[in-house]
Parts: sequence; C-alpha cells; structure tokens
Amino acid sequence: VGDFAFDADTRVWAAGDPGEYRAALTDRWDGIGGAVNGGYMVATCTRALGLLVPFPDPIVVSGFFLRPGTAGEAAIRASVWRSGKTTAFGESELTQDGKQVVRVTAAFARLADPRDGPSVAGPSVAGPSLVEGAPPSLPPPADCVGVPVSAFALAPIAERVEFRAAALPGWFLGRPTGRPSSEFWMRLADGRDADLLALPMLVDSTAPSVLELGVSSATIQLTVHLRAHPAPGWLACRATTRFVSGGYHEEDFEVWDSAGTMVAQSRQLAVVLPL
Amino acid sequence: VGDFAFDADTRVWAAGDPGEYRAALTDRWDGIGGAVNGGYMVATCTRALGLLVPFPDPIVVSGFFLRPGTAGEAAIRASVWRSGKTTAFGESELTQDGKQVVRVTAAFARLADPRDGPSVAGPSVAGPSLVEGAPPSLPPPADCVGVPVSAFALAPIAERVEFRAAALPGWFLGRPTGRPSSEFWMRLADGRDADLLALPMLVDSTAPSVLELGVSSATIQLTVHLRAHPAPGWLACRATTRFVSGGYHEEDFEVWDSAGTMVAQSRQLAVVLPL
Repeated sequence: VGDFAFDADTRVWAAGDPGEYRAALTDRWDGIGGAVNGGYMVATCTRALGLLVPFPDPIVVSGFFLRPGTAGEAAIRASVWRSGKTTAFGESELTQDGKQVVRVTAAFARLADPRDGPSVAGPSVAGPSLVEGAPPSLPPPADCVGVPVSAFALAPIAERVEFRAAALPGWFLGRPTGRPSSEFWMRLADGRDADLLALPMLVDSTAPSVLELGVSSATIQLTVHLRAHPAPGWLACRATTRFVSGGYHEEDFEVWDSAGTMVAQSRQLAVVLPL
Repeated sequence: VGDFAFDADTRVWAAGDPGEYRAALTDRWDGIGGAVNGGYMVATCTRALGLLVPFPDPIVVSGFFLRPGTAGEAAIRASVWRSGKTTAFGESELTQDGKQVVRVTAAFARLADPRDGPSVAGPSVAGPSLVEGAPPSLPPPADCVGVPVSAFALAPIAERVEFRAAALPGWFLGRPTGRPSSEFWMRLADGRDADLLALPMLVDSTAPSVLELGVSSATIQLTVHLRAHPAPGWLACRATTRFVSGGYHEEDFEVWDSAGTMVAQSRQLAVVLPL
C-alpha cells in the first residue's frame, strides 16, 4: 500500500474476531449528490474477503446495494463459505452505524498471470480460447477529450478516475443523445495501474449511461467477472444499456486492457430515477 | 401448487425457526452426469426467500455454486437483510448433509404486471423505455426440430424443459460448430407457463454453449435479471458465449416472451471442463 488513493481508501484494519474489519470510507469517491461510490465499497469489501481466502484473485464479485454509504467509519464482516482445490467462496458485509449498506459475495481463484511465466496456470488453461468482439475503436488518449474535473465539483470521483472520449457526452453538453451507450478510455488519475481489485470500482465509476435518456439511476446489484490481470496503462471501455422498462435498466460494461485483452465484464441492475 | 413438476419439486416446508425450510430436491432436473441442475436449486432457494419478503417479484437473483447438489433432502435457511419501501434484499442458503451447496442473494420488488391493470405499478414506470435488440428470429415452434428426449437418457431435465430450434445443434450431431451461440424456443414440457420463479431455472436449463467448442463446463456463479412477467406460451431464447480464456467462460442468456417482451437476462461465469 503506497500513496495511491485507491489503496489508502480501501484499506481495512482487523477488528476483533477473525473476519471482522474496520474501514474508513472517504469522500474522495463520491458521485454527484454525495453518495459514496458503490464500486468503491464493493472493492473494499472484496479486499477484506481476500485476506481470508487462500487464492489471490477475485474472479466473480456480486454486490447488492441496500443503502447509500456515507464517508466515515464502516465495519466489515467477512467469512469464507467454502475453500476448495481451485476456488474459494465467501461473503463480505459492510455496515455503518449498525445498518447494512453493501453485501458482497465473491469467488476467488488463481488466474493465469503472464508475469508468473508459463509454469503457474489456472484450471484448464490448455483448453480452447475464444474472443468474439474487439476493444472499442478509439482515437489515442492524447487525441481524446476529458470532461473537465471542475465541471464535477460535486463528484469527487471525477478527480480520482480519468476519462477520455472522442467527444464530450451529450448529457454533459445539455443535449442527451437518446443513446445510452458509449466508449471511452479510463485510468486511475494518480498513476496507479488497475488490478483485479480496482476493476470492480472502475466499472461503476462512470456517470450512468441513462443520463443520455435524460434520467439518472441508482444501482441495486452489480456483478463483475474478472477475466484477466490487466496490463498497465489506459483501459478501453464500453458501457451499454439496451433495456429500460418498468422503471429499471441494466448497464453492461466491458474493460479491455492496453494489450487488447478483455479483462472485465460487468452488469448491473438499476432503478431509474428522475434527474 | 398443482400437479406441475416445477411447482412440486421446488416446494419448501417450514422447519423450525422462521426462515428455516426443508426441501426435497428431485432427480427430475438432473443434467448429464447426474448433477442436480443449478438453476433448479436457485429457483428453490428464491422461492423460500420469497416467503419472507413483502414484495412478490424477484427482480435480480445471484447464485453461487459451491458444490454439486444431489437428489434428496436439503435444508434452506433464508433471511431478509433489508426491506425498504420498494425493494427487499435477502439471502437463501441451501445445504445438504450440513454442507453448503448453493448460496443465493436476491432483491424483490413489484414489477408492473399487465394483469393488474394500470393502477398497480413499480417505481418510475412513467419514465423512459428503451429496447435495443429484438427477439431471436426463429421459424414457428411447429416448424422447428426438438432434440429427441430419448437421446438424453442421462439428462432427465430434457424431459422437463422442451427445446425447439431451426436445426439440431452441431455438438449433438457430433460436429461441434466452433460457434458457442444459439437461438431456440423453450417451454416447460408439462404445460406450466413460465413465471419469474421458473425463469432462473430456465436460463440454466440448456446444454452449455461451449459444447460447440468441444468442451463442457461447470457454473461458478449465475446472475439473473427478471425484467417483466412473461406472457404465456413459448419463450424465444438466445444463448451466447463470447469469451473463453484461462479456463473460464461467460454465458449470456436472453429470454423473450410470446408477446415480444424481453423478460429475463442472465449471465454466468463457468469453468471449462473436458468433455
């Protein structure tokens, strides 16, 4: 844990019985309106659970959002449900003032890591591989535009996560496009490279796609598949909402690393809110 | 609960303290190899949790599969985490012989239901709606072919869930196509119409898409979004695997009802297994 904001702010301290931790949620990841970012809380919960399992890599993380979180003290209770030969399962619950805020369930394993060399491998790595799809086709980050941080005085997370896109979003310019899909670059603003722990935060760090429909949203549930260790550098991302109905919508998110590997897929279910 | 297999086999009985239930998993939903279908266990857990919450409709269900289930007695312990004005959250854990098999987390609410008339509605139903996509383009069910049930002597679930596709799958004919995506009709074979409880089973009831790559798979986690009450009749479905790497793959599933409404979206993370 160095001086990077993500590492400092997701830190947990042992507190009492095994699996019980204390966390200090900061206001540096707040979105518009002052709610602590859900992905940041999921990442913090996942980090706590990771201390208990014998495998290094979260491979699937599911978070349910029961209440908005607020900056300040939080308690986390993590427990391992099963630890098998290749996969461990457990949960991690974050409470504030005795009230449940986020419940995270996750599976951990060991993903193949190019840095480990070919001798360390996950299950069945010799099996088939398939990539149906490609990274977003974006101009280089230097040729893209970023939303000015000053425009987000009320969304501190915009200072922590840097975005670049070919053009400014319609909703930001006051002209929602009606198309809640977008492609963009993303990275942590302080130079920390993304890893499997940061990805669950990053996939929830953007403004909701449905802003392009003139509405906002609140996440009920977020599932993240972590598919590979991301290479250092910018991440090419694609956020897509295809179905808005009955007051709910999904948002899908794909993250491709600088080596062209699809490293994370997420989907959330959210409730539509008036702006 | 009538004579339909799904209702009979997902039944739970109160056992002891509130939230504690007994279930009797049957072998009628086994896949090839004799493992109880995961979606069937998720549906049973969701049904138990539904008895405790004040809202009728599961809207998102997340199931983690810790161990294979086996036909026979099971214990379910369900608990409500939070019940708010529009949404309730809780979990449901299925154990056999004292060992955890499946852990389900779900959110319940009230989805708009055409049968209720316009006066009963979920949150923000007056908001925008968007459908990017369309049902699979399939010949009518009567003009499609079904995989003969007799071919699945070892997969009893094939007798419970009826499939029809424009052509028999390549893997079934011994010629895997290399393309793990398919479109088909589906319904419960005994005439029971699908509802929000049956959908989490149905999205997990097909043979894995990766059979078209010459491998099989075991599900680690399944997330299902329930977006609308399905109209009676055949369901048009689309199963897609786009990413197979490092021994894992995802499988996405879309279910469209006979009225042309997208009623469920699911995604699972699974580990690749040799055939």
